[in-house]
Amino acid sequence: MKELVKDMIKKRGVKMEEIAQIVFELQKNYLPITMDMCHSAIESVLQKHEVQNAILTGLALDIAAEKKQIQEPLLSMLLTDEPLYGVDEILALSITNIYGSISFTNFGYIDRMKIGVLSRLNMHRDVQCNTFLDDLIAAIASAACSKLAHSFEKVKKMQDDDNTCI
Amino acid sequence: MKELVKDMIKKRGVKMEEIAQIVFELQKNYLPITMDMCHSAIESVLQKHEVQNAILTGLALDIAAEKKQIQEPLLSMLLTDEPLYGVDEILALSITNIYGSISFTNFGYIDRMKIGVLSRLNMHRDVQCNTFLDDLIAAIASAACSKLAHSFEKVKKMQDDDNTCI
Amino acid sequence: MKELVKDMIKKRGVKMEEIAQIVFELQKNYLPITMDMCHSAIESVLQKHEVQNAILTGLALDIAAEKKQIQEPLLSMLLTDEPLYGVDEILALSITNIYGSISFTNFGYIDRMKIGVLSRLNMHRDVQCNTFLDDLIAAIASAACSKLAHSFEKVKKMQDDDNTCI
Amino acid sequence: MKELVKDMIKKRGVKMEEIAQIVFELQKNYLPITMDMCHSAIESVLQKHEVQNAILTGLALDIAAEKKQIQEPLLSMLLTDEPLYGVDEILALSITNIYGSISFTNFGYIDRMKIGVLSRLNMHRDVQCNTFLDDLIAAIASAACSKLAHSFEKVKKMQDDDNTCI
Repeated sequence: MKELVKDMIKKRGVKMEEIAQIVFELQKNYLPITMDMCHSAIESVLQKHEVQNAILTGLALDIAAEKKQIQEPLLSMLLTDEPLYGVDEILALSITNIYGSISFTNFGYIDRMKIGVLSRLNMHRDVQCNTFLDDLIAAIASAACSKLAHSFEKVKKMQDDDNTCI
Repeated sequence: MKELVKDMIKKRGVKMEEIAQIVFELQKNYLPITMDMCHSAIESVLQKHEVQNAILTGLALDIAAEKKQIQEPLLSMLLTDEPLYGVDEILALSITNIYGSISFTNFGYIDRMKIGVLSRLNMHRDVQCNTFLDDLIAAIASAACSKLAHSFEKVKKMQDDDNTCI
Repeated sequence: MKELVKDMIKKRGVKMEEIAQIVFELQKNYLPITMDMCHSAIESVLQKHEVQNAILTGLALDIAAEKKQIQEPLLSMLLTDEPLYGVDEILALSITNIYGSISFTNFGYIDRMKIGVLSRLNMHRDVQCNTFLDDLIAAIASAACSKLAHSFEKVKKMQDDDNTCI
Repeated sequence: MKELVKDMIKKRGVKMEEIAQIVFELQKNYLPITMDMCHSAIESVLQKHEVQNAILTGLALDIAAEKKQIQEPLLSMLLTDEPLYGVDEILALSITNIYGSISFTNFGYIDRMKIGVLSRLNMHRDVQCNTFLDDLIAAIASAACSKLAHSFEKVKKMQDDDNTCI
């Protein structure tokens, strides 16, 4: 299933590499991370059922909109990414929620700053419908950031415990 | 827009009357309500953009699934309402969230007890895809319950203020 | 940290056994579970930072209210568990969110039906302030239910994969 | 109640003017707004019960931490605003949720960029505990942004309707 989800993301025009770059960009000043660690964190996020389902559903809506298989007035909202249409953010939120509240703050920041590949997705809206795709990518990246932050915290706590044991 | 949303709900087989009955059933032991008040509360819920968008999106997914316009494996999840597929609850949550946390507790209760029309929707899954419809109805009903509870609280506070004025 | 959180819950009057009973009650008709499995699922929930923080914060508010260390009008809201005060449900939601949307539906059901120990907590409000405690217990139980449901799904998928391999 | 909440915010060192400035800063490039409109939007946000309760609860925790009325290990988490402690964001989320998903994206952005008064609050952590205060201010500001965006959308729709009537 995870491979299928990764394939769909790729077909919609986003490389795993590009998601990893957002994660690296956001965390490099706070955590001693490598690009490999960013990749692993993303893989771990994409393993979760809840995440997979949100991605499959969002991309299905983007694709159905492109094929005009959705009725008005929803069709126009999706094709223009109407600012007050918020179901894309809702699906993204269902991904970030699993990773706690740090993830949720990062999402807003990534989404608003159009970091990395998100800036390209935002410009190429005439080519394909990215209404859900861009928020899903921002959510995956922010969930991976949160995953990394929690992992380092665990390492730190283990070291602290070691100190107190001496 | 509100009329369009009400029309779509009707076409999917649920009468406004039936949603009002869920609300009445849930609140009659706590609040001095009439069926008219339940109807007004539902109208007020359906007025909100955020609510309308969640309904339009959920029903679009139910309809697209029926028409087999969605790819596997999502198609089978939608047609069978797979227990671990939770995007339907996520959309419902985006409705209840607007009405605060009482709404959210009521949703879980209505959804699990299959109150009123929800029991029928749950049985007629072979006729049409109700994966999103049933959760959306439960969410509209629980939002309306919350709307009513908040309204009565305001009345009570105004009366209390009157007393202290004397 | 997990042991400290378990200790606090016990000091507030709830045994781990009683939380496990709620989980067992809710899932016994759906999953082939034992009480031991319920205990393990609860242990796993209590391991999460996000869960521990929500519990510590909620119980700190219950305790501060009992000691009258909180100013009015919040103090009265906490001591009477005012129906429109919803921050207790918000903290509970932060626990269930981590376990996806099944967890969230179960929470509403457990909370409203006052299953098991929750009925006792609800009656003994004169002895101590349980405003946060009861919602936290319901959240831990529903998170554990969700954990169990997801685990069995994985087992089932592995078996299905085995079949297709033959 | 609203006046009481405004008073508490002022006593914790934040002027209504400063919250209005965040709102103005964020929306001035998108909407034809004045500072007066920002003030009205904030007043409307602070009118909501759910918002008032989140503020009262968060500030009660900040104050109790300052007075050392909270047990360890929660006390240290609150006094240092530990990065992985996320209940402050959870309470903020309960405010932004009421205003839909635009509000939630803005929150992440305001919180991370430490816009306006938030930068001062972040630096003066040695003087008083601002763990909840800063997230609550960010949430009020982003809710007000959302309120404004929705109001202008309504005006625009009314104008569109006027055109079609001619």
